[in-house]
Amino acid sequence: MASQLFVDLYGCNEEILNSENDIRKIARQVVSDIGAEIVEECVHTFEPIGITYFAVITTSHFSIHTWPEYGYAAVDVFSCGEAVADRISESLKEHFKASEINVGRCERVIGRTPDRSEE
Amino acid sequence: MASQLFVDLYGCNEEILNSENDIRKIARQVVSDIGAEIVEECVHTFEPIGITYFAVITTSHFSIHTWPEYGYAAVDVFSCGEAVADRISESLKEHFKASEINVGRCERVIGRTPDRSEE
Repeated sequence: MASQLFVDLYGCNEEILNSENDIRKIARQVVSDIGAEIVEECVHTFEPIGITYFAVITTSHFSIHTWPEYGYAAVDVFSCGEAVADRISESLKEHFKASEINVGRCERVIGRTPDRSEE
Repeated sequence: MASQLFVDLYGCNEEILNSENDIRKIARQVVSDIGAEIVEECVHTFEPIGITYFAVITTSHFSIHTWPEYGYAAVDVFSCGEAVADRISESLKEHFKASEINVGRCERVIGRTPDRSEE
């Protein structure tokens, strides 16, 4: 079983959303907090603004997309390890100095279909 | 508004799941099918098996994780462009020669909170 956490962050600090350096730092901290390790990182800065960060982690992936013009960031944590704790979304809220967050979650069954797993 | 599509693919062809080359080809075809362009690609092959593919695309991201030992692949399409059509999941099923798929979808509100958008 893998779990996937989606966090929409609103009213974020614009400087952070524009800083590759800050985004990397936040990502590394959060990946460490969920007990995973970064295997590979990929960061792209869009013109004129907006950053996409992606990390292949030992338990799947971690991504951040920022839209500084909207004060918004979208974070995904896909983990085939232990379930990603809800506190991660609160920690992201603090890191981005967000005023509001919206959290979604889904479970993904690895290796056998959901029907089969219920047999 | 952005839409995110999650496709779990079961009973996939093992050779495809093990081939960086095939994964890249499939990704490029699907990204083109959704009318986006690849900005940057990142591929990691795990030891002993398993591939993670990630593309920063003009409308957000596209990722594939494979678990060849389970005949399984997890695909995510995050798009802030037009809604990702359901036919994409059928096309993925064909590309991976999967016997079964499980499709999830979520909408993400960019730039203002869901509450505000309903005012």
